[in-house]
Amino acid sequence: MFERLQQARRSARERSDLARLIDACRALLGARGESNSVAIADAAVGHYRNLSADSLKAFFTLLAEEFDPDPQSVLELAGRYAQSRAPEDLIALTRAAEPPRQELLRRLIRASGGTAAVLSMRAQLLVRLRGDRRLAAVDADFQHLLSSWFNPGFLELQQVDWDSPARLLEQIIRHEAVHEIDGWGDLRRRLQPDRRCFAFFHPALPGEPLIFVEVALLEAMPAAIGPLLDCDQPPAQDPRRFKVAAFYSISNCQPGLRGVNLGNFLIKQVAQRLQAGFPALRTFCTLSPVPSFADWLAKVERLESDRLKPARLKALDAALQAWRARSHGAGPVEKAGASAKGGATEKAGAAQKTDDAELLRRLCAFYLFHTSAAGLRPSDPVARFHLGNGARLERINADGDLTRKGLKQSHGLMVNYLYDLDEIEANHERFVSEEVNASRAVTGLLH
Amino acid sequence: MFERLQQARRSARERSDLARLIDACRALLGARGESNSVAIADAAVGHYRNLSADSLKAFFTLLAEEFDPDPQSVLELAGRYAQSRAPEDLIALTRAAEPPRQELLRRLIRASGGTAAVLSMRAQLLVRLRGDRRLAAVDADFQHLLSSWFNPGFLELQQVDWDSPARLLEQIIRHEAVHEIDGWGDLRRRLQPDRRCFAFFHPALPGEPLIFVEVALLEAMPAAIGPLLDCDQPPAQDPRRFKVAAFYSISNCQPGLRGVNLGNFLIKQVAQRLQAGFPALRTFCTLSPVPSFADWLAKVERLESDRLKPARLKALDAALQAWRARSHGAGPVEKAGASAKGGATEKAGAAQKTDDAELLRRLCAFYLFHTSAAGLRPSDPVARFHLGNGARLERINADGDLTRKGLKQSHGLMVNYLYDLDEIEANHERFVSEEVNASRAVTGLLH
Amino acid sequence: MFERLQQARRSARERSDLARLIDACRALLGARGESNSVAIADAAVGHYRNLSADSLKAFFTLLAEEFDPDPQSVLELAGRYAQSRAPEDLIALTRAAEPPRQELLRRLIRASGGTAAVLSMRAQLLVRLRGDRRLAAVDADFQHLLSSWFNPGFLELQQVDWDSPARLLEQIIRHEAVHEIDGWGDLRRRLQPDRRCFAFFHPALPGEPLIFVEVALLEAMPAAIGPLLDCDQPPAQDPRRFKVAAFYSISNCQPGLRGVNLGNFLIKQVAQRLQAGFPALRTFCTLSPVPSFADWLAKVERLESDRLKPARLKALDAALQAWRARSHGAGPVEKAGASAKGGATEKAGAAQKTDDAELLRRLCAFYLFHTSAAGLRPSDPVARFHLGNGARLERINADGDLTRKGLKQSHGLMVNYLYDLDEIEANHERFVSEEVNASRAVTGLLH
Amino acid sequence: MFERLQQARRSARERSDLARLIDACRALLGARGESNSVAIADAAVGHYRNLSADSLKAFFTLLAEEFDPDPQSVLELAGRYAQSRAPEDLIALTRAAEPPRQELLRRLIRASGGTAAVLSMRAQLLVRLRGDRRLAAVDADFQHLLSSWFNPGFLELQQVDWDSPARLLEQIIRHEAVHEIDGWGDLRRRLQPDRRCFAFFHPALPGEPLIFVEVALLEAMPAAIGPLLDCDQPPAQDPRRFKVAAFYSISNCQPGLRGVNLGNFLIKQVAQRLQAGFPALRTFCTLSPVPSFADWLAKVERLESDRLKPARLKALDAALQAWRARSHGAGPVEKAGASAKGGATEKAGAAQKTDDAELLRRLCAFYLFHTSAAGLRPSDPVARFHLGNGARLERINADGDLTRKGLKQSHGLMVNYLYDLDEIEANHERFVSEEVNASRAVTGLLH
Repeated sequence: MFERLQQARRSARERSDLARLIDACRALLGARGESNSVAIADAAVGHYRNLSADSLKAFFTLLAEEFDPDPQSVLELAGRYAQSRAPEDLIALTRAAEPPRQELLRRLIRASGGTAAVLSMRAQLLVRLRGDRRLAAVDADFQHLLSSWFNPGFLELQQVDWDSPARLLEQIIRHEAVHEIDGWGDLRRRLQPDRRCFAFFHPALPGEPLIFVEVALLEAMPAAIGPLLDCDQPPAQDPRRFKVAAFYSISNCQPGLRGVNLGNFLIKQVAQRLQAGFPALRTFCTLSPVPSFADWLAKVERLESDRLKPARLKALDAALQAWRARSHGAGPVEKAGASAKGGATEKAGAAQKTDDAELLRRLCAFYLFHTSAAGLRPSDPVARFHLGNGARLERINADGDLTRKGLKQSHGLMVNYLYDLDEIEANHERFVSEEVNASRAVTGLLH
Repeated sequence: MFERLQQARRSARERSDLARLIDACRALLGARGESNSVAIADAAVGHYRNLSADSLKAFFTLLAEEFDPDPQSVLELAGRYAQSRAPEDLIALTRAAEPPRQELLRRLIRASGGTAAVLSMRAQLLVRLRGDRRLAAVDADFQHLLSSWFNPGFLELQQVDWDSPARLLEQIIRHEAVHEIDGWGDLRRRLQPDRRCFAFFHPALPGEPLIFVEVALLEAMPAAIGPLLDCDQPPAQDPRRFKVAAFYSISNCQPGLRGVNLGNFLIKQVAQRLQAGFPALRTFCTLSPVPSFADWLAKVERLESDRLKPARLKALDAALQAWRARSHGAGPVEKAGASAKGGATEKAGAAQKTDDAELLRRLCAFYLFHTSAAGLRPSDPVARFHLGNGARLERINADGDLTRKGLKQSHGLMVNYLYDLDEIEANHERFVSEEVNASRAVTGLLH
Repeated sequence: MFERLQQARRSARERSDLARLIDACRALLGARGESNSVAIADAAVGHYRNLSADSLKAFFTLLAEEFDPDPQSVLELAGRYAQSRAPEDLIALTRAAEPPRQELLRRLIRASGGTAAVLSMRAQLLVRLRGDRRLAAVDADFQHLLSSWFNPGFLELQQVDWDSPARLLEQIIRHEAVHEIDGWGDLRRRLQPDRRCFAFFHPALPGEPLIFVEVALLEAMPAAIGPLLDCDQPPAQDPRRFKVAAFYSISNCQPGLRGVNLGNFLIKQVAQRLQAGFPALRTFCTLSPVPSFADWLAKVERLESDRLKPARLKALDAALQAWRARSHGAGPVEKAGASAKGGATEKAGAAQKTDDAELLRRLCAFYLFHTSAAGLRPSDPVARFHLGNGARLERINADGDLTRKGLKQSHGLMVNYLYDLDEIEANHERFVSEEVNASRAVTGLLH
Repeated sequence: MFERLQQARRSARERSDLARLIDACRALLGARGESNSVAIADAAVGHYRNLSADSLKAFFTLLAEEFDPDPQSVLELAGRYAQSRAPEDLIALTRAAEPPRQELLRRLIRASGGTAAVLSMRAQLLVRLRGDRRLAAVDADFQHLLSSWFNPGFLELQQVDWDSPARLLEQIIRHEAVHEIDGWGDLRRRLQPDRRCFAFFHPALPGEPLIFVEVALLEAMPAAIGPLLDCDQPPAQDPRRFKVAAFYSISNCQPGLRGVNLGNFLIKQVAQRLQAGFPALRTFCTLSPVPSFADWLAKVERLESDRLKPARLKALDAALQAWRARSHGAGPVEKAGASAKGGATEKAGAAQKTDDAELLRRLCAFYLFHTSAAGLRPSDPVARFHLGNGARLERINADGDLTRKGLKQSHGLMVNYLYDLDEIEANHERFVSEEVNASRAVTGLLH
């Protein structure tokens, strides 16, 4: 009885928060909003924070329906501008064509805590995006404005180290998405003098990392992640021997920033910062996973040979056949390292293992080159990210990630992408024209 | 001979800077720009800084001509959206209708020093705006983006005091626009414990104040500026006696931010900050100049009476006649304070002076109420600013500013606008509907 | 063979470091030292850091033997001053009587890193103090100077919280000496909004806590440590309900500062800081262990009754007899809580437990009052510390610390000492005259 | 009447402050002081600040009379130690021989604001030192402790520049003692990129510079001060051309630190800091005044030749005769530059001027070498300071300081002292053995 009453009260309060939020949004775009928008935005943010899931949905629907531009007046102004080409007509058209919710968001963000609130709205919106096609235009407006507000000219690059606040380090532990951080001891290894961690911060979100990257300073380009994360290995001490900066993990912390490309900027700024601090550094590369290689291989394995007709896939066909033979013969490749007893068997086992590794590397090269429907772009998201940044596919390493996750996702393969700061732009342009930039070592695997 | 050669070289270099800037702008919007926009933006900013006046003009013309939206495709998309109302059509329309130079500016600002460069461009653009009508649309884009980037949610309110860096204080001295600061001693008086100075800063422009306000903490609403700035008066020591915060000067430091209303936000945030620090404060008001009152009066003085026919201007007519009599009789009002000798004369002089003061206050009330062509809005920019912020016209003070400038601009009058934080929104709405919010004391002057 | 060579080299290097350190020390007190003491001190500190254990011993012996004052000249100057009472003779005497190693330390500390080096020397010296009587005078000089350098006027009180650098928090975990911190999760509980941690820092040792205290903000004086440290209990949220600040742990981080009383200053400064931040706080107390109560009880248990003859120990005699009966009857008191089955037995068990608790509290009261050979001062170090600071023995709590360590050291008892800031000085004076300041509740236990 | 009453009240209050200060001092050394010394020290500092001049005198007299060591017990303990040589006897002796006011000061400095108070006491004491011989021992204790507390290991070297707080810069202007700073414009010139200013700070006196030095970064060793301070000369821009760091002014800000040699440390730390920042710097030197050269010359000019008998002063005798001739002939040397008309006269004037310059430089060389009664040490305080630091007398420049003050004090001469960081120690030792370290150029002037 009492509980029901409470529930009733709660939902009344929520309805009221929703109603007030809507009022505040309308006021923000009206005359009151002009004079005292910060106070109204503060109120709006306060009500937003109290919304339940249902109210959130109602709020986003409102954003989609009420704050669209007026089609007729846009059409009319577009016509006028097409005729006159006059600046004043252009100004009027530009204003009319911009959905009013953009101005709404620009006024909401004025609130104290407004930036965090807008990011939270976007995160909530993304969750609901698939289910409701009308929200796409709302989301486009969020992404448009967030890209403008979170431009690298406003961001601060900060090194994260063992002198950073525990509250920040805790977030690094929580958001690490590539190679899980198993507690503070594990984190500490990643902040030793031969490791670096850098994060972007926005001034309106103090203490909140947006995205961070972890780097290992090494003597040579690394082929496997295990040694980099090994807490028992003592840190390298002599900075003069650091020749390679290997980016081995990059993680986003703000779901609300999806589609706002910060990783590209982060990697390049960090590379510059490191180059300035360690003039002996010669190579900037990644050590990256190939997250859905195993899935792709499982799928393609089941394809009939005649589906792989195009000339360029001939080599893949041969490799696939060998792979099928391996899989059904000596057991799954990921178990190839399992102990083989006796001298002769051991040698045979080693040779077998090398063959398997080579086979996987060839298959992976195909995967990274030939899987985009439209052309040569890879379907692998990590590859698309780095190649799109202008990096080069430098090396495919077998046995690079022998964790459970690594074996499951990519049969243990890891990839180095190379960031040659002088070639980035040209590489990117070639990538845009459907070309994968790769080293000879990698293209050699394709034949 | 040698000089001519040098000049030739210089202009060659300049042309080259212009050409490279244009190339960089195009690249920023092309495929290269996507992958490495910061590096290209850095280059663009570098070239921009070297431009001569002529090259600047060429650059702005380019912005106006090359980076406009395509009228036909906007028209087409507007038509499609008007029919379909589909989110994807709206997204396409919004994108097409936004002038590409907005995206160009968003990418330029990514450069290190990009924010300062964009502000400098805007300042240069404003200088050329009157002479070239085509630049209006370019300027609208600048203002649109700057309003978004310099929203109060991103700004930091900082107190400026005697512990602030000399470099910052130097800028305060330079930019003070209302009551000139005559050197460091004068500045120091304005930073004593019974005075406050606050400025807005943007994180991407460290050490560069955007706008600042000076406040006096007092026991009563001030009627004259002289005592507030008097270096010889010892600062009030007991903060418990501060009942009134009087904003006596507000100055912009960034010409590139014209039209981006920061003053409104600044005054309200400062009022909140002061209220938190001094709970005994009861009144937030200004002590403001009436900059073009004397000009108006000179103009209106010459009008024929029958031009002032409308009923509401009858009272003005009477006042004007008295004024004309005064001006041609006992000499200009601003000399009314000049020494009169002898007991009787003195009394008469004092009475005269009081009458003059009253007359001027009445004329000023008319000036502030009835000078907008469209309606009741004042043409006085200071009045429009504060009334538009939702303040109330509280009191008109004779002999408020007896400096040369004060006598010349406003016959010495100064005005208090009252910021009643609870009434600001309602006041603003009334102001929007052409109503001037004023105290009874002021409206009483109109009859 | 090779190893022996290496060892030979190492010990040669060490001898050389010792020799150079000694040279540098002599130079510091000579003419060279006057002009460029920082450079020489830098060198000395460098050599000191390389010393082996043997060399350290040799170094301290040198400090003891070579840098003593000259007895004859002191005697002569003392004679002269006793006769003349002249200021210049006093100056000469003061200079001559001060061991030259004090000046040596004052010059060593000028080095970069000198403060850390001198603290390290003291820590090493303390380890060797028992074995070598000659070092006592050296140690006295260290303590004398460190007390002067680490005076509270130079120290900075800083709050340690979850925003503190991980490096600092790691040291808090390591140095916590009273209630062990079991990892970062445990630490985090102690830094929640209803807990406080404060540390003293010296400006010449940035990032190095000297001593820290942990405080719980509570509604009532706590009787047991368990709930305070329980990570599962949600932190109290409403600061208006904090009436009691309970200091539940205080730990030194610098062994080299032994005998330099910082705890006294720390507790009082923290109390003031908390009082300023939480005006509703009424009570500042501790929740303290009684570390050697169980040892004392085991010893005294074996004493013959007639050794406890003095009138004031009569009550103790009775309590001891009861205790002996308990110990040999129903099992050791610390097991009194062990499960008793059946209704009647349960009641009896509970009554039994209450009696045991009372008995232990009485015995503990005796322990804290009557165990100093010289008089009424307690031999318990924690009691001596707090009572010496002017606190009052407020309450003895049974079942205050049920950890293994707590049961073993004190049969689970914990004590509250009360810091009444107004009574501290008077209490201290009474304590100096051999009186234990205690509440009536505690003195009541003595009869 | 009323005034007398007020005066009576005031002096009663003062007597009471003095009495309470004395009570607090006694309490600090008594039992109460042990437990709560900070609170008592706070009170003492509060009373001290209210003392009038008379009360200050009484307070210092008390320090001299009541807080001396007990002569008899020192004598007895000195005797015991001379016999036993036991560490415990030494400890007892050291304690007894130290004047108790040292412990008093150590406890006073624990107060909040204690460091500033102790410095103020010392400054007040120094003023009274000449008049009261008994205060010498008190002053020795102050100096002894301040030297320990203000050791360079505790001090922070900070660059002072145009980004420093105005409050700090104001102090730099006020305390500049060598070449007066004429307002903020003049100061600004001294903080341009080719100038440096560094100050020492003590952590317990935040924002209060102790001593500062001004440095010019130049291409060559400077011979005159005028160009260095000229606000109209544009700052040198290219840091690669800085070969010489010339210390042209060093000023103390704390009179209470007299006799605590910070200048020596400051110059050397600044030299190191500059060397690290500008690896191309080759020379560290000063451009220094010779403050009492003119006085000395006026005195020695009046001496009879036969007073200059010693062989080593023969050369001086000759120079003096020439000087006397000049002075009584062509007018005072300082006017030698006055306009001479006509070609021939001009040439003659120039030659004359050169001769005068040479003569003055020779006389100055004598002054700097031969004026200490005890030996070869100079009586010039600036020379004693730099030579005592281990610098070398490098060059004597005529027409180095043509200001009124420069001409009056030293007939315009200025001196370069050279800090060769590798020779400092050896130079200092030679200086201690009465030898002036000088370049050949300077010693050449002596013959």
